[in-house]
Amino acid sequence: MSNPVLVNVMRGDELESSHCGAVAVIDADGAIVASLGDIERPIFPRSAIKVLQALPLVASGAADQLGLSDAELALACASHNGEALHAQTAAAMLAKAGLDASALECGTHWPYLDTATRALAAQGREPTALNNNCSGKHAGFLCLACALHGGVNLRQYVAGYVKPEHSVMREVTAALQAATGCDLATAARGTDGCSIPTYALPLRRLALAFARVGTGVGLSADHARAATRLRRAVAQAPFMVAGTGRFDTRVMERLGERVFCKVGAEGVFCAALPERGLGVAIKIDDGNNARACEVVMAAVIEAFVSLDDAQAMFMRTLSEVTLSNWNGIVVGQLVAAPGLRALAGSGQRGRHQ
Amino acid sequence: MSNPVLVNVMRGDELESSHCGAVAVIDADGAIVASLGDIERPIFPRSAIKVLQALPLVASGAADQLGLSDAELALACASHNGEALHAQTAAAMLAKAGLDASALECGTHWPYLDTATRALAAQGREPTALNNNCSGKHAGFLCLACALHGGVNLRQYVAGYVKPEHSVMREVTAALQAATGCDLATAARGTDGCSIPTYALPLRRLALAFARVGTGVGLSADHARAATRLRRAVAQAPFMVAGTGRFDTRVMERLGERVFCKVGAEGVFCAALPERGLGVAIKIDDGNNARACEVVMAAVIEAFVSLDDAQAMFMRTLSEVTLSNWNGIVVGQLVAAPGLRALAGSGQRGRHQ
Repeated sequence: MSNPVLVNVMRGDELESSHCGAVAVIDADGAIVASLGDIERPIFPRSAIKVLQALPLVASGAADQLGLSDAELALACASHNGEALHAQTAAAMLAKAGLDASALECGTHWPYLDTATRALAAQGREPTALNNNCSGKHAGFLCLACALHGGVNLRQYVAGYVKPEHSVMREVTAALQAATGCDLATAARGTDGCSIPTYALPLRRLALAFARVGTGVGLSADHARAATRLRRAVAQAPFMVAGTGRFDTRVMERLGERVFCKVGAEGVFCAALPERGLGVAIKIDDGNNARACEVVMAAVIEAFVSLDDAQAMFMRTLSEVTLSNWNGIVVGQLVAAPGLRALAGSGQRGRHQ
Repeated sequence: MSNPVLVNVMRGDELESSHCGAVAVIDADGAIVASLGDIERPIFPRSAIKVLQALPLVASGAADQLGLSDAELALACASHNGEALHAQTAAAMLAKAGLDASALECGTHWPYLDTATRALAAQGREPTALNNNCSGKHAGFLCLACALHGGVNLRQYVAGYVKPEHSVMREVTAALQAATGCDLATAARGTDGCSIPTYALPLRRLALAFARVGTGVGLSADHARAATRLRRAVAQAPFMVAGTGRFDTRVMERLGERVFCKVGAEGVFCAALPERGLGVAIKIDDGNNARACEVVMAAVIEAFVSLDDAQAMFMRTLSEVTLSNWNGIVVGQLVAAPGLRALAGSGQRGRHQ
């Protein structure tokens, strides 16, 4: 792997650290609009593709049958902070399916958001699986199970739903295969943080899937409708997809349906840019899924989305990040490396053609 | 920057992420015993050099005048977890100097250790500067100030001690310059997380400084005695230099004075290996100061320190790390990349010469 530097971390005027990676910007016909680094090497997309994994929840009719709200559908696409509202919303989804938190097989961890963790601790409480950042995705799987099963003994039916051979996960995997056009039977498979399978796929195919999510082109009619509904749900309830202070939430609060972006573990970030009909997929080689991913995604959005002055100023705070120390003294900056700036330039030229 | 891959992150049998960087293993005469990547490029050593910054605390006589204990001297070299015992020990050091936490200019943050943060929150408390990972280093600076000043109005004298031009910081900088042999007046300077200056220095010189700390060779007699005392203090009180669950603490609890190792921010890790007369300096390009740094340091220790079977088994758990998910299912592994394994092999051959 010898991908280019995408992000430089400056301390004063000196380079302190840097992040390498690859970026694919693809249209719905599969044409490469812009790219950096190796976009053919399979990478694990992790949580960046939750919207693809949520397509059957809507396409199956489960979301309508159970009357899922925008907030609940957004949570099904989320890697959330585990804040109280996230946990409550996951519990409400499970209740609609006639289940509760004990059906979740995602495991338990303390909330991602420090203040949410401290709030739980201050109340003398422990986290539950509802606080797991994936609880909404898993609640969505369990809602999907209602539509697939429909009969008695739902609780018995859903046991082991995280396993690749379970009919719930087969449905989810089929949606991923259809959206990416990859043969998942031959793809390398790993186990994700929340115990479901994750398949190694080229960035080019992931970006294509997001172009399809943004346009409907290349998806079945049911999946195209599902993608539109999920994107709108997230735009209506961007807090649900991440939470307080998070990049995805902040960007979609500002830009609404014009951007659908979703971060994943180990430095993966995907987005649909429906106005341009483009999909984006990013992998940071070292797995940094915070500062590096975010600067790259912000630079790509700046390049490929038409922004008014206020939006442009906001996005610039995410693509050129000031670093302060514990006393609030400015000590450095995160900046896009020259190669990424050039890609951004190509996007801006394309926009004015 | 095009340093080699040092650590691979595997998910199942697939490469998920990787970390590049550079390693210098140097003897006290400055000879390169082993190296990977660019060891001449200046990098900010950050907290990895706290032992060098603590040399004047001992050499000045301040540590003796104030009767500092091993635990307190170890805390002066620490990036600690902010656990209750760390905070109490920093407060005790300040009390010996006739000062309190209000003299600290390091800023405040919640403890690094999650359980310590949750314990504070459960008590309805907020952190103070004593919980800052650098509070021991800063308490050490303030104890040094006692020896430098000696008069009345100490509180007035120490104000602004973090600034490069303050006489406390000039003494600290002089020790760093002497140990590394670098001209810090011409080195690039940044501001550290705790607001003191940090100087960009080549890994080769940092490793040399740690070879000197381990052997005394090349240091003034006062600094050589101070280095020995600080290394012994940390070996006696390894909990103080980091804390619960931390690499530095765990390794020095096992290996005692045979290894002195200290992590720093942004992927820097330094060590003295006194038995072999070697110094080690590592920089991970992407700034990862946890998993990547630790696997590299563990591999270097395996290569250059003679270990009995139990010690070797222990170190192997740090150089080949099993990764589990929220359900405790094994999902992957951190492994040293081939180049690092080869460097490790060269160390083992050298050991048996």
